[in-house]
Amino acid sequence: MPQDPNRARNIAVIMAGGRGTRFWPRSRTLRPKQFLAMVGDRTLLNQTVDRLDPLFRPEDTYIVTTADLAEATRCLLPELPRENVLVEPEGRNTAPCLALALVEIERRTPEGVMAVLSADHWIADAAAFRSDLGTAMDHARATGALVTFGIRPTHPETGYGYIETQGEGAIRSVTAFREKPPLETALAYVASGRHFWNAGMFVWTLQDFRAELQRHAPDLLTPLDAWRQAGADPAGLAAAYACLPKTSIDYALMEKSDRVAVVPASFPWSDVGSWPAAAAFLERDGEGNAVKGEAVLVDSRNCTVFGGARLVAGVGLDDLIIVDEPDALLVCHRDRAQGVKAVVDRLQAEGRSDLL
Amino acid sequence: MPQDPNRARNIAVIMAGGRGTRFWPRSRTLRPKQFLAMVGDRTLLNQTVDRLDPLFRPEDTYIVTTADLAEATRCLLPELPRENVLVEPEGRNTAPCLALALVEIERRTPEGVMAVLSADHWIADAAAFRSDLGTAMDHARATGALVTFGIRPTHPETGYGYIETQGEGAIRSVTAFREKPPLETALAYVASGRHFWNAGMFVWTLQDFRAELQRHAPDLLTPLDAWRQAGADPAGLAAAYACLPKTSIDYALMEKSDRVAVVPASFPWSDVGSWPAAAAFLERDGEGNAVKGEAVLVDSRNCTVFGGARLVAGVGLDDLIIVDEPDALLVCHRDRAQGVKAVVDRLQAEGRSDLL
Repeated sequence: MPQDPNRARNIAVIMAGGRGTRFWPRSRTLRPKQFLAMVGDRTLLNQTVDRLDPLFRPEDTYIVTTADLAEATRCLLPELPRENVLVEPEGRNTAPCLALALVEIERRTPEGVMAVLSADHWIADAAAFRSDLGTAMDHARATGALVTFGIRPTHPETGYGYIETQGEGAIRSVTAFREKPPLETALAYVASGRHFWNAGMFVWTLQDFRAELQRHAPDLLTPLDAWRQAGADPAGLAAAYACLPKTSIDYALMEKSDRVAVVPASFPWSDVGSWPAAAAFLERDGEGNAVKGEAVLVDSRNCTVFGGARLVAGVGLDDLIIVDEPDALLVCHRDRAQGVKAVVDRLQAEGRSDLL
Repeated sequence: MPQDPNRARNIAVIMAGGRGTRFWPRSRTLRPKQFLAMVGDRTLLNQTVDRLDPLFRPEDTYIVTTADLAEATRCLLPELPRENVLVEPEGRNTAPCLALALVEIERRTPEGVMAVLSADHWIADAAAFRSDLGTAMDHARATGALVTFGIRPTHPETGYGYIETQGEGAIRSVTAFREKPPLETALAYVASGRHFWNAGMFVWTLQDFRAELQRHAPDLLTPLDAWRQAGADPAGLAAAYACLPKTSIDYALMEKSDRVAVVPASFPWSDVGSWPAAAAFLERDGEGNAVKGEAVLVDSRNCTVFGGARLVAGVGLDDLIIVDEPDALLVCHRDRAQGVKAVVDRLQAEGRSDLL
């Protein structure tokens, strides 16, 4: 539903500074995951902005990214005002990123409710997503809560943080934030019905976000406020930003605040965190193979080809993911995709910035 | 040793019309296996010619190939007279190829002993190879025998024909030619000590080769002799050649003649018949991996990379062969390399001549 012009603005803040090295060789330093159409035909960043319409107006949609990605981000999103792409002087994790967004947005609009989103997640059923956002924003406006979204776990994922909740219904209170659990604990979480994945999406009013930061993490605000009061000279931002603690908003704020609420998500979600996760979105043939691009697979099962300009031929293969780029090729067993990071690390150690 | 000028010439005939589709995507219609450095730094064809020196003079070395490969063959072998690259109008197996070589060489030199060799085999210890050739040529000159080389089997290969021999020493008589045997039979052959692989290399005098062809396979000579007597007009060769039976020299002649002798080879030999066979020539690291080109292998064992211009990264891989070409990529399990032919067949069926 379109927003009521009599109420405070709906503001979207999309964190888009990620690198996505787990999608090498398709993702690169200057072509991170959010710039890729890992799922669907548009980039994940474009899909993220697309699904905000009509709940958020383009002039109230902000992207936070680093300087080296800012121009490409503006180019991908011509529907947004150029100045809505906010530039972090450097990546310092999510807490400084959101503190900067707060201070920059406060300079432009005195009041509003802010939804924090990730640029590189997959979300289906945009209507359900906007409906859940509406629920969260209404609740934030009405109660001053810091609202987070909980994803109902589909498997005992050990790579995510969990939110333990109590209560029923569309808005729940939080018992605890749980760090990435061992498998046995994760299994218990999935069974409990009270634990949700922490997807890193938040809703709060500008005013309450400031108040809670001031209370629990003032060192995230002080340098930025001083910079703003000194005139907000763009050249001075880097020095202020360098003073902010490198920490996540979960650790700096959410785990400390007693005003946190959870909206269980009613939309399908994935962080598309690896090549196997991306492969799961492709349609498979009778032998379990899926191909983007052109491939000839002989005597092969459960393989996924993310092709490029060349023909990919496979013979006698099982459970592989093949990614073809003009200057590099990845062949990866689908159960060992965490090793892609080791490839990137080795290239870094060898100074192969041309491939990173 | 250099040849004695008082004796008939030493003539080498190298059959170089093969396609080597089993080395797709590196081998192509116009870049067959003999044009590739599958083993070593020079092409297999160049290595074949190199190892003849000084036993055969360049002007007595002939290559037989098809029209589409003739110019590239001449280009690869500038040391040979252009006219020594003989052109088959079409590929019709080895018997027509060698009958044509006989007729063409008879036009130029009345007498000589002819060694028939393959352009795409690997042979180590060139001195031992030339010594064995010398033994075979002396025997052919002295006795009029059709001499073939026997390779002592190193494993129960079911893809080769075998020669059953009797006697001892450097020259043996033949009991029988044996077709590609089932595994159990091949095991018995390897154990017998009397069975050798038929490597398709032969030595005979021009005169004896003609006499035995005339006796056992006159239909291989009649059309070519008629063409020659009519003036050997190049334009008329195709019509004569099309009359020749599509058959191998083993079937047409060697299995029928009672003048066959075997020289057991004292040199290491391989027909380098597949990607795994080529991979066996590469040096491996502690995890059994071998790389030509540039590769980063993580958590991977017994893999071989035949790289191209791009980086190849492997994660969690076992027993694979990866071949990178600018327009196509092959990933093949090393135990299923016979499936490469199925890839080529499928591309042919799809009319992808650009990749063949």
